[in-house]
Amino acid sequence: MSSLIRTAISLDRELLEEFDRIIEQKGYGSRSEAIRDLVRDLSVKSDIARNKVIVATLTLVYDHHQHQLSEQLIEAQHHYAGKVLATTHVHLDARNCLEVIILKGRGAEIQHFADHLLSLRGVKHGKLVMTAAGPGPARVHQPR
Amino acid sequence: MSSLIRTAISLDRELLEEFDRIIEQKGYGSRSEAIRDLVRDLSVKSDIARNKVIVATLTLVYDHHQHQLSEQLIEAQHHYAGKVLATTHVHLDARNCLEVIILKGRGAEIQHFADHLLSLRGVKHGKLVMTAAGPGPARVHQPR
Amino acid sequence: MSSLIRTAISLDRELLEEFDRIIEQKGYGSRSEAIRDLVRDLSVKSDIARNKVIVATLTLVYDHHQHQLSEQLIEAQHHYAGKVLATTHVHLDARNCLEVIILKGRGAEIQHFADHLLSLRGVKHGKLVMTAAGPGPARVHQPR
Amino acid sequence: MSSLIRTAISLDRELLEEFDRIIEQKGYGSRSEAIRDLVRDLSVKSDIARNKVIVATLTLVYDHHQHQLSEQLIEAQHHYAGKVLATTHVHLDARNCLEVIILKGRGAEIQHFADHLLSLRGVKHGKLVMTAAGPGPARVHQPR
Repeated sequence: MSSLIRTAISLDRELLEEFDRIIEQKGYGSRSEAIRDLVRDLSVKSDIARNKVIVATLTLVYDHHQHQLSEQLIEAQHHYAGKVLATTHVHLDARNCLEVIILKGRGAEIQHFADHLLSLRGVKHGKLVMTAAGPGPARVHQPR
Repeated sequence: MSSLIRTAISLDRELLEEFDRIIEQKGYGSRSEAIRDLVRDLSVKSDIARNKVIVATLTLVYDHHQHQLSEQLIEAQHHYAGKVLATTHVHLDARNCLEVIILKGRGAEIQHFADHLLSLRGVKHGKLVMTAAGPGPARVHQPR
Repeated sequence: MSSLIRTAISLDRELLEEFDRIIEQKGYGSRSEAIRDLVRDLSVKSDIARNKVIVATLTLVYDHHQHQLSEQLIEAQHHYAGKVLATTHVHLDARNCLEVIILKGRGAEIQHFADHLLSLRGVKHGKLVMTAAGPGPARVHQPR
Repeated sequence: MSSLIRTAISLDRELLEEFDRIIEQKGYGSRSEAIRDLVRDLSVKSDIARNKVIVATLTLVYDHHQHQLSEQLIEAQHHYAGKVLATTHVHLDARNCLEVIILKGRGAEIQHFADHLLSLRGVKHGKLVMTAAGPGPARVHQPR
């Protein structure tokens, strides 16, 4: 079970005021919320650098008229060394599809898989996002 | 109907050799394929800078034990100024969910929506990817 | 005069442990130091988004054998709408130079200037970094 | 001696029109110029991924009132495993300095050096840019 720890930090008045302005603009509920997000972001970057198992989403835009592309995309997913958790497909217009592939695996194998798919003829654009569940649960509000 | 145009470019021998090495490593079928990808990437960046209607995927990792978070996520999607095309949900472990929300809209409203969701208590990590169907179909192989 | 303010934040034990691990790896002296850096980074991004006056460095790699390129680079700096604070030049090898141009101005005019220089024939690579002095002085140790 | 090679690529009419629009907006002299830039960018990323010797610029904003910071910055540069090519210093205002350090070395050691400097008390903001002279000379215009 994870527990919440309180720690004090010190910031210059002006930097703190700037932080509060950004917190309000972005809609965070508290300074702690915002700092947790910043720290989790560091943590994901660190997991990627150390090649730990992470979760990633690969967004592809492609032309489904491209001969055999759908087969190649499915084939590649079946041969992926890690785990494909889910795939979502959206029809953007008469020709273009958007597909999001959710992957689990190590950074290096995920990057290799993404490079392969992005190089296929008919794949027009794509971006890879690496994330992670990260350490500990989120700050849980305790409902009574 | 889009047609394929041939154009000649000139590169230094060494730069071309380096290009061919990268093409092979990434698995592109031809130089044209690789250049199309580079140009499409420029095109998407340009669409974002000019605030054109684009497609985006927002990847969120969150703790579903967080009180009322699911309701807040759904509520936010219903109030989003653009269009939510699809949402995919994956159970990462006992506490953590990964959700991918596929959005259509202008860059500024998509950014605002993403900021709001990322600021919610219980959302642990998230990343926004902006893409676009972009100009023209992909290079279509003509099957006989 | 800026003063130091103490504020308490709360993080899950595991997230805090992960934070401490990263702090040690990166060599920060304290959690406050690391958080100040994260907040300043947010602040710079916010200044750029709001088109405030910022400072930027443009790094260029170019071939000084390229006819008239040096003249074009100097000419462009004289016509830049903002202020060029300094330029540093390093001879990388027989042909290649690296130049760092330090600029003051609004994000949009800096971007326009950088695009122009990067498009010149003979400029081989370049990257723009936007930064800012940001709010308040750094945490100043008070020597007696 | 490097020589210029001509190669033909094929793009869809619409994608080519979009490319030409961006080329004009960014001020490139020709499609070849723009493509050379895109390819060099790929090449630098590839050099970094393979941990080759590259050139980097580290931009720091710091408070020179911070006790002993200047000494620490100089000390660190003397102990850096690679080579410090040049350092430029600009006085931003009464308290803040901007310093650009130009480095040669492998990606990993440059990253480690940058992490160390960015973690020093009094360093308010910083960004690292990795670049490279890259393969071959730039396309040299032949003046008669």
